[in-house]
Amino acid sequence: MATVQFGKETSARGEFVRQKNRFTDRITADGSSGWKAEPGRYRLVVCLACPWAHRALIVRGLLGLDDAISLAVVDPVRDERGWRFTLDEGDRDPVLGIEYLSEAYHRADPEFDGRFTVPAIVEVESGRVVTNDYPRITLDLSTQWREFHAPGAPDLYPEHLRAEIDEVIEPIFRNVNNGVYRCGFAGSQEAYEEAYDALFAELDRLSARLEHQRYLVGDQLTEADIRLFTTLVRFDAVYHGHFKCNRNKLTEMPVLWAYARDLFQTPGFGETVDFDHIKRHYYYTHDAINPTRIVPKGPVTDWTEPHGRG
Amino acid sequence: MATVQFGKETSARGEFVRQKNRFTDRITADGSSGWKAEPGRYRLVVCLACPWAHRALIVRGLLGLDDAISLAVVDPVRDERGWRFTLDEGDRDPVLGIEYLSEAYHRADPEFDGRFTVPAIVEVESGRVVTNDYPRITLDLSTQWREFHAPGAPDLYPEHLRAEIDEVIEPIFRNVNNGVYRCGFAGSQEAYEEAYDALFAELDRLSARLEHQRYLVGDQLTEADIRLFTTLVRFDAVYHGHFKCNRNKLTEMPVLWAYARDLFQTPGFGETVDFDHIKRHYYYTHDAINPTRIVPKGPVTDWTEPHGRG
Repeated sequence: MATVQFGKETSARGEFVRQKNRFTDRITADGSSGWKAEPGRYRLVVCLACPWAHRALIVRGLLGLDDAISLAVVDPVRDERGWRFTLDEGDRDPVLGIEYLSEAYHRADPEFDGRFTVPAIVEVESGRVVTNDYPRITLDLSTQWREFHAPGAPDLYPEHLRAEIDEVIEPIFRNVNNGVYRCGFAGSQEAYEEAYDALFAELDRLSARLEHQRYLVGDQLTEADIRLFTTLVRFDAVYHGHFKCNRNKLTEMPVLWAYARDLFQTPGFGETVDFDHIKRHYYYTHDAINPTRIVPKGPVTDWTEPHGRG
Repeated sequence: MATVQFGKETSARGEFVRQKNRFTDRITADGSSGWKAEPGRYRLVVCLACPWAHRALIVRGLLGLDDAISLAVVDPVRDERGWRFTLDEGDRDPVLGIEYLSEAYHRADPEFDGRFTVPAIVEVESGRVVTNDYPRITLDLSTQWREFHAPGAPDLYPEHLRAEIDEVIEPIFRNVNNGVYRCGFAGSQEAYEEAYDALFAELDRLSARLEHQRYLVGDQLTEADIRLFTTLVRFDAVYHGHFKCNRNKLTEMPVLWAYARDLFQTPGFGETVDFDHIKRHYYYTHDAINPTRIVPKGPVTDWTEPHGRG
């Protein structure tokens, strides 16, 4: 088997098997989970490079939860101790007072020895991670924080569409969101090729689906679109080259490229995308696949081109 | 400075500085150089992955020198002892009787400790390398082997165009042929970015030049086109991702892409291109930039699409 980025998360056949999310407590409207949705109580920690964190950032913005849940942004370059608050004065998060996100993980579980991941929601008072369960975080922002949404905020996970959303996002997760990582972190040629085939087969299916409808589910923006977007927006910048997802670029798939631009140009999307953080994070942090740590200058991509959808 | 592929060929600033060609004897029509052009006397050793060797392969074919100069093809995957004849029965070149190309180098100079490169022309009887001076090899095939050219063979280096050919190929070598290597083997971010800027500036100039003329020099195919072709044909397959030459793909530069297809579809070009050898060589051999040795499955590119030139 080839050198791998995350040994603990690689199968004997060389497949990348993402670790389970360790902290899966939920923050709920009624507080029955032990964590009540309350403005000012929690801090969302993201890395702008990370597609899983990016979901939470977009959803928080679209729902107008910026004042209710504060935001911490880590340095896109992780070292062996994990995510760092080096973008803040004194290299320390001004609200949580910590230098490394790992400190909030260890306050919740001193024995935790997995990867410290973003997004993480940290309770400000105790300084401990409440949840790093990214698929749940965004759904709970939509459903459990309703009282604090801005007037006229969209319903990103509406009751009548949930079954279809859940059905659509499952293969998107497996083949696309996590699929690009299964390409990039594969420890064998065989595992890589399987992931590559599944990724592009899924992208072809999604392209066909989006040919005659603007959004993935129903005729409105939903959680499903956000989940697809955060992978598509990174596709040419990092997944195409760094993760070898190179059958073609996103810009070479006309339907998906127009769909991604449509979302990018929707308020709440484009302004959350930081290509500098994205490229530096991927090319700098994964030294098992890019030991030189040289960050490509390209690609040049025009996200403002009219999308012609809608 | 970052990890580098070829330490001896990297400057203090991290620039890749290609080694000089060690064996620069010429094979001449009159034999005044000590090596006379004679059918059956020499064997051309190439790797199908290598753009420098590819030039010689194309020129030999276009001039009809196949019977006059025999051909040996090495394995695209090089090990620490260099190019191997593992595609032949018994892992040995049937004419030269050697397992490694390095043996022919050492027969010419037992002290040689540089990289063993292709193309190399080896004298069959003595088994020693006569020349690995790739820029000279093709010009001499055109000018010194004229007696053995096929009837009606093209003149790829005609007297009246030589000054212009020489002028055009100099920046092509510096910025494109060798420029992609200067991107890929850069040992610092700064050296990489300089090479990237020079590469794409040159490709833009070439694109403008080729917008209203079919070939680079005059109205005929010349050595200049062959030298540009061998880099362009590899661009999307290896240089774009592996060497981070990713402002855009060749297929995204309409003039150069049509020009490259025109040549690919010209007899003597396309049939010399082996994308399997190209991809396996680059992704497998340069383990300082691709330590996993996983070979990308893409890109999917249609070289048979009509080119609309001419």
